[in-house]
Amino acid sequence: MTMYEIIDKKKNKKELSKEEIAFFVNGYTKGEIPDYQMSALLMAIVLNSMTDREIADMTLLMANSGDMLDLSFLGELSVDKHSTGGVGDKTTLIVAPIVAACGGKIAKMSGRGLGHTGGTVDKLESIKGFKIELSGDDFKNQAQNIGLAVIGQSGNMTPADKKIYALRDVTATVDSIPLIVSSIMSKKLAAGSKNIVLDVKFGSGAFMKDKESAEILAQKMVNIGKKCGRNMAALVTNMDVPLGTFIGNALEVKEALSVLKGETKGELLEVCLSLSASMLSLCLKIDIEKAYKMAQDAVLSGAALNKFYEWISAQGGEGIELEDAPFALDIKAEDSGYIYKMNTQKIGLASALLGAARKTKDDKIDYLAGIEILKKTGDYVKKGEKIAVLYTSHNKLFDEALKMYLSGIEIKDTAPNKEPLIFKTIH
Amino acid sequence: MTMYEIIDKKKNKKELSKEEIAFFVNGYTKGEIPDYQMSALLMAIVLNSMTDREIADMTLLMANSGDMLDLSFLGELSVDKHSTGGVGDKTTLIVAPIVAACGGKIAKMSGRGLGHTGGTVDKLESIKGFKIELSGDDFKNQAQNIGLAVIGQSGNMTPADKKIYALRDVTATVDSIPLIVSSIMSKKLAAGSKNIVLDVKFGSGAFMKDKESAEILAQKMVNIGKKCGRNMAALVTNMDVPLGTFIGNALEVKEALSVLKGETKGELLEVCLSLSASMLSLCLKIDIEKAYKMAQDAVLSGAALNKFYEWISAQGGEGIELEDAPFALDIKAEDSGYIYKMNTQKIGLASALLGAARKTKDDKIDYLAGIEILKKTGDYVKKGEKIAVLYTSHNKLFDEALKMYLSGIEIKDTAPNKEPLIFKTIH
Repeated sequence: MTMYEIIDKKKNKKELSKEEIAFFVNGYTKGEIPDYQMSALLMAIVLNSMTDREIADMTLLMANSGDMLDLSFLGELSVDKHSTGGVGDKTTLIVAPIVAACGGKIAKMSGRGLGHTGGTVDKLESIKGFKIELSGDDFKNQAQNIGLAVIGQSGNMTPADKKIYALRDVTATVDSIPLIVSSIMSKKLAAGSKNIVLDVKFGSGAFMKDKESAEILAQKMVNIGKKCGRNMAALVTNMDVPLGTFIGNALEVKEALSVLKGETKGELLEVCLSLSASMLSLCLKIDIEKAYKMAQDAVLSGAALNKFYEWISAQGGEGIELEDAPFALDIKAEDSGYIYKMNTQKIGLASALLGAARKTKDDKIDYLAGIEILKKTGDYVKKGEKIAVLYTSHNKLFDEALKMYLSGIEIKDTAPNKEPLIFKTIH
Repeated sequence: MTMYEIIDKKKNKKELSKEEIAFFVNGYTKGEIPDYQMSALLMAIVLNSMTDREIADMTLLMANSGDMLDLSFLGELSVDKHSTGGVGDKTTLIVAPIVAACGGKIAKMSGRGLGHTGGTVDKLESIKGFKIELSGDDFKNQAQNIGLAVIGQSGNMTPADKKIYALRDVTATVDSIPLIVSSIMSKKLAAGSKNIVLDVKFGSGAFMKDKESAEILAQKMVNIGKKCGRNMAALVTNMDVPLGTFIGNALEVKEALSVLKGETKGELLEVCLSLSASMLSLCLKIDIEKAYKMAQDAVLSGAALNKFYEWISAQGGEGIELEDAPFALDIKAEDSGYIYKMNTQKIGLASALLGAARKTKDDKIDYLAGIEILKKTGDYVKKGEKIAVLYTSHNKLFDEALKMYLSGIEIKDTAPNKEPLIFKTIH
């Protein structure tokens, strides 16, 4: 078997055997296959695709290329949630305590953010004293006893994905369903949970720009996860507007707390209850309506809020008395009319410009920086009316962030069609 | 402009601009673009193809990447012939003197062979004293005065093609019409002739296995050559059987001489007259029937033979008294029946095993080694009848060569359909 033959086969639209996929995944990870052969194969995969069998084999092989988290001590109860990334997405902070309060077990490794948004780890680190590193035993015990532990990524997880992704990033081979699915799902398999719920986002703030391709991706990931022995569900959700009212690390923790306290309702609560319901339905093996009711009750009764406090304090968090940012700037509407469209990516970038995200992995985050969004798509605004507030610790960052925010807002005389937040649920 | 954007564009089936093609051809030649990006682009070109405009731009840019031979001193009379490579193809040795005898001007750089066959340079070097290196002035004067000069490749011709071809060779991106056309035609453009005739071969001894794809390739090369300002014609010819009776360097020179003397006729003479006619038609601007008659007369009158001797002696060749190989071995038919098929590639490899070709570019060639083919496809043979003779200077090479030859011969009770040697002429 040679890499040449494997490239030639995929170029000719043939199905690769498991042995052939193992040859290039393992060979490339070990540095035995040169980049120029791997990139030729990746382009052939982008253009000629892969069967579900090939994707499942590739996913498992990539998952097995490094350390695998063993959550078998949690039995069938372990459950994970993965979002394909969006702006203002604090759902993990809300969903995890709801699910744990209802009996699901969440033992999660989470990433730091890069680009236009902070990751869950960054949000948690905005809580004073919160420890993102736990020993293996502490992590297991906490997941077992409290039902909820979140730590930063450590060890040598999915090195095959890291190497392949770095090459895709410079060879225009990112936008391929088989390659996206194997990248995401290999990490989820290595993360060890038996039950996995995906939140696949589409729209101006997401990687997938339209709902149809997001649905195809979601369906494919559900299929592949099932082929690899996991229980799977997925939501396809709208990221044409930022999720909720706040963007920024400490600001999002505050908003999550307010949802758990029952003070903030609306779409953010709605999507969190739906995600929780899918997770509970899988791990408790109950029907989705019953699961939804359980999640709702956990918020109403305060059980989810208590679970949140229990979790934060187990990991050293010293209460949630988050300070305010030293500087704030109101953004005012430049015209009268309906907010017709928000370019959510630009709004995320405005938040990043204020200091809420890293450009490179060595940058420091300003946990207090971020944006409060007062008017969203569909709202009528008058010229000069306050539509958002920018927060930062460095007031000279306002200029660029303000320009970026306004460039992401389109005001028109006519109201836009209202799109639902949840486009599809796949079980 | 970035390489990433260019890869992405071709991946999305878009047409690249001349500037974009210049960016990657020049950037890759200079070593500014890494192999892994170039191979991703090559695979995208293999799978999404290129328009004629893109191929013409790429061809010209590759031709201009290094030295260009300036044959303008020959005016409209310069004419070149290119064969896509076959087994037993000694047509250059026959066609060049015919054309020069009729007034065409051939100033040709020719390659050494690698793999299963010797190149024209190797064949000429089997003539004692023949000098394959001439000074620039001697080359020009000889082409001007005798109408015929052939030298080995020198200088820095088409470095872009050399680098790109080496990468294609290890990334399964060889079999692509746009890449084959730009590779061959860039070399032909750099070689400087105003008139170019292509001999595109198909069949078991050729790169293109079927006549339909050979015709597509031929038509495309003719189009691209015309777009680049050359007069073009092409023949599509059958390489399902070796061309003529002999394979091997000195043996092929002998056979060529015998054709020029009028002693050997048949298909080899036929294809040489057709190639000569196409070349003369282009460079003398006369119709093809008249050109064919001229070529025929040049052989009959002995003018072509005299031109051959004049050429060889101008380049130092000391007469054509070629010795015989020290060892010969008869091959006998293993069965009675019709020779139904010859795997011409295997027959070429048998000749290479006898020492007639190089495996690597530092190998020495045994000029006397080769094969005399007595029975070809369509002939009836009796078991034990002599069908070929192997020649070599090292008699321990016979075993493997004999096995290889026999594995390339299929004998059946029924006669095969007779295919014509010239499938198509494109003008």
